[in-house]
Amino acid sequence: MSIDILQDRILEKTNPTVAGLDPRPEYVPEFIMSRHIAEWGKTLSAAAEAFLEFNRGLIDALCDIVPAVKLQSAYYELLGWEGVRTLRLTGDYAREKGMYVIGDVKRNDIGSTATAYAEAYLGDVELGGEKLCPFDFDSVTVNPYLGEDGIKPFIDICRRFDKSIFTLVKTSNPSSGQLQDLKIEGESVYVRVGRLIEALADDSLGRHGYTCTGAVVGATYPRQLTELRQKLPHTFFLVPGYGAQGGGAEDVVGAFDKGCGAVINSSRAIICAWQKTGKDGRDYAEAARAEALRMRDALRGVCGL
Amino acid sequence: MSIDILQDRILEKTNPTVAGLDPRPEYVPEFIMSRHIAEWGKTLSAAAEAFLEFNRGLIDALCDIVPAVKLQSAYYELLGWEGVRTLRLTGDYAREKGMYVIGDVKRNDIGSTATAYAEAYLGDVELGGEKLCPFDFDSVTVNPYLGEDGIKPFIDICRRFDKSIFTLVKTSNPSSGQLQDLKIEGESVYVRVGRLIEALADDSLGRHGYTCTGAVVGATYPRQLTELRQKLPHTFFLVPGYGAQGGGAEDVVGAFDKGCGAVINSSRAIICAWQKTGKDGRDYAEAARAEALRMRDALRGVCGL
Repeated sequence: MSIDILQDRILEKTNPTVAGLDPRPEYVPEFIMSRHIAEWGKTLSAAAEAFLEFNRGLIDALCDIVPAVKLQSAYYELLGWEGVRTLRLTGDYAREKGMYVIGDVKRNDIGSTATAYAEAYLGDVELGGEKLCPFDFDSVTVNPYLGEDGIKPFIDICRRFDKSIFTLVKTSNPSSGQLQDLKIEGESVYVRVGRLIEALADDSLGRHGYTCTGAVVGATYPRQLTELRQKLPHTFFLVPGYGAQGGGAEDVVGAFDKGCGAVINSSRAIICAWQKTGKDGRDYAEAARAEALRMRDALRGVCGL
Repeated sequence: MSIDILQDRILEKTNPTVAGLDPRPEYVPEFIMSRHIAEWGKTLSAAAEAFLEFNRGLIDALCDIVPAVKLQSAYYELLGWEGVRTLRLTGDYAREKGMYVIGDVKRNDIGSTATAYAEAYLGDVELGGEKLCPFDFDSVTVNPYLGEDGIKPFIDICRRFDKSIFTLVKTSNPSSGQLQDLKIEGESVYVRVGRLIEALADDSLGRHGYTCTGAVVGATYPRQLTELRQKLPHTFFLVPGYGAQGGGAEDVVGAFDKGCGAVINSSRAIICAWQKTGKDGRDYAEAARAEALRMRDALRGVCGL
């Protein structure tokens, strides 16, 4: 099962890290950007090609030590369809290099529209009898505000194509509590959502005991992370908020169950590591690798792996 | 202000309809699809080009009687980046023809990532001093599960670029109540969300008395629609769920305030009208126009315009 593959790779590499490839024009070293601007002018295509080269360099530097990548769709959509092409090609490249590919798209809709999103990112579309894969990611993030109508179509596609999803449960941002922490009969909305998503797929557990429907739980709320780990024993966690957003290794301890059941995201700290070496960016891949190794070692110390 | 432009066009055409351009391969008449498959093979590009031709024909047939289009992003993403290119070009074409363009993307994220989504769809991105517009829609839909951190960046971009957003408040699907109807101190989550979004921008009302931050409220819940209209006098409503999802003209009466303050979406009933004429689809544009006129007349009868 797909979520087992993620857990297996984490165990193989003794590293529960997912590298967030969230490029912005200012994160890409000048030597890469200028070459593409020289070829394409100051266009969305130039930036999209520069992102692709930057990402491929990062993937080459990380793929033997980091088990997964998370692609934040916003930064690709910011370059229009040209950027979405880079999103697709980055996913392809990471998968070729043996990495688990999570599309951080936070999609949400109902019925046949939710199915269309699920097919787009995890499945296929049929055209005149031909099956075509638009993105072919291993996993995507999903927003639960629409209730289970917005989640079940994703789970159906997960079952058909052996993929996984991560549903937003308790997000890492300061205002996440405005809705998520509201209490109904003594239980908070985030716990309700967590229980709902675990129940939707707990009829099919993988070898490691997790369902295909994981949860996003922020590193910035360590108490809730620990609470949810206890209440949702079969739910795999994707944990953002480590590093730039303020969460440290000790904050994510509660996400793990004997070293299993969670993957911790870091984006800027890894992909912008070159901006702290005092050099011109030609060292961006080595700098990213050095930072990823630092993070791996910090997590190994606390997560029980 | 942007939301005034939408209201003005509704009043000019005495028609509070937004046409949902949500194409699927099976909605496109054979004579269009086969031509593009002949040129491009059974590929995502062929389908994306067919969608674009289909949409342009619909826009030509509707633009003098329907004030706005809503583009459901899922159906474009289902064709990968090739489909996202069609999403952009469809928006451009509709705007050229004088229609208000709503991207139904239901995006949601935090801080700088939410800003990236807002810039992508409503604003611009800077590359070496050059400002580039990735999509340039008039408005997008936004999901509120992350709290105001996920909405404020969109409002900032609305103010800078004179655009609008529609935040999901009470959605049209059967399970929308699982979260949205939960009661906290006697008030439901959807009312809380509605009050929050109205308050975030009520310092700047347009000529017609509405803020830049509208709400999505489903036609399938007429009682809640009426309740929200009373509680949110300065919030413009985007109302899905009419037609194929079961809502009728009498169900949306409560959305209006003396004929103002709401726009009603219909997708399949308009774009698939040709499938009910018993012909081969060459009449798809006229069939769509006839259906749009029927809907306009039905709404005129009840909405007070």
